[in-house]
Amino acid sequence: MLKNGERIDQLFAEGIQIIQSSEVFSFSIDAVLLANFARVPKKGKIMDLCAGNGAVGLFISQKTAAEIEQIEIQPRLAEMAQRSILLNHLENQMTMHKLNLKDTLSIFRKDAFDLVVCNPPYFKELPLSQKNPNPYLAIARHEIETNLAEVIKMSADLLKTNGRFAMVHRPDRFLEILDCLRANRLAPKRIQFVYPKADKEANILLIEAIKDGKNDGLRFLPPLITYDDQGNYSPLLKDMLYGN
Amino acid sequence: MLKNGERIDQLFAEGIQIIQSSEVFSFSIDAVLLANFARVPKKGKIMDLCAGNGAVGLFISQKTAAEIEQIEIQPRLAEMAQRSILLNHLENQMTMHKLNLKDTLSIFRKDAFDLVVCNPPYFKELPLSQKNPNPYLAIARHEIETNLAEVIKMSADLLKTNGRFAMVHRPDRFLEILDCLRANRLAPKRIQFVYPKADKEANILLIEAIKDGKNDGLRFLPPLITYDDQGNYSPLLKDMLYGN
Repeated sequence: MLKNGERIDQLFAEGIQIIQSSEVFSFSIDAVLLANFARVPKKGKIMDLCAGNGAVGLFISQKTAAEIEQIEIQPRLAEMAQRSILLNHLENQMTMHKLNLKDTLSIFRKDAFDLVVCNPPYFKELPLSQKNPNPYLAIARHEIETNLAEVIKMSADLLKTNGRFAMVHRPDRFLEILDCLRANRLAPKRIQFVYPKADKEANILLIEAIKDGKNDGLRFLPPLITYDDQGNYSPLLKDMLYGN
Repeated sequence: MLKNGERIDQLFAEGIQIIQSSEVFSFSIDAVLLANFARVPKKGKIMDLCAGNGAVGLFISQKTAAEIEQIEIQPRLAEMAQRSILLNHLENQMTMHKLNLKDTLSIFRKDAFDLVVCNPPYFKELPLSQKNPNPYLAIARHEIETNLAEVIKMSADLLKTNGRFAMVHRPDRFLEILDCLRANRLAPKRIQFVYPKADKEANILLIEAIKDGKNDGLRFLPPLITYDDQGNYSPLLKDMLYGN
């Protein structure tokens, strides 16, 4: 089941095992935060875009009977994710598609999904931007193969009316995120800021929008603090990682 | 110095006394939060719009040698504020003007201020909206005499290039605030959410924007929690109220 350099990690809170590789990709806390933030429908259809090694889809699978589709452009990551699906005996619920996000509508219908989740690349691709020398990580983190506007437009296309979009991103791109959402009929509804410590600025943004939702009733959820003063995971994070 | 029903309250942290009246107006924690959030220039000119009984301008006066102008439409509040200025011997630094915000440019120049602070009415004036039966409080809290768009446009007019605007408002009007700011050449730069308790949704928003600033580098300051689990003011709030 494992290839060279791979290991199996466990998200104890959800009872999920996931194949990882430090050379290629390991899920970050961001995937765990997104999986906990998203309001997951009990049934229907869920899409996980920019799925990487499948972490977000795997983590939410335990909360729903919905079909989960995953799309990842990198063959090596898509293949690892497919093995993680088998490892967790989720092959009847989940499918990973090795696919360029641009081609999503070649195999999926528009207006068909109840929830789209996405942990996209965070960093703008600029001529002088420093990229990770590891090409797997560079594509996962930098907007080389796709970008925010494209991800949000595709998400809006895939969603049913009143379907939900949930994304994790960086606070410094917040205004751009709002503009993209609203330009694509996605009304922001729930926002949660994640702060590394109680006295630090936010470093992660969680945002939910509803397709064709009304432009009012925006809520800002309680602050999520990642680490306590001693540098250990906060009680909330421990619950997300290890269960309670 | 005091009229019927008035009392003198003290903001110990700043050593400021302020004339208040429960029948007319008392400053709220929001004024204290705004005074602490605003980055106050050491000198130059500061405008306090929708100044009420003058709390925000009085609180920031101790951090600066800048001239502070205040505008309030309600004669009774403006007159109380003017007496508070005298009470604190600030008449050489501060002036309260009983004036409709719409008429601000009849006595002040455009592009002249380094900082505009504002604690405006929060609630939309809708045909069916429940208003406070006390007309002083109704005007202070509801958009009867002015509104968000007007306040922000006037602030932008008053500010110099690179001048700062700092406002306290409600999170549920966040999108509208961003739209108004950006429509008036004000680039959002610093945002702080205030949460009543660590596990509650944000109920107050502090936002700073810079006139003609660049549209990047938006920062989300550490979460501000008002009360601890026992319902007492949090240590941060105690510092703001009583000093440290």
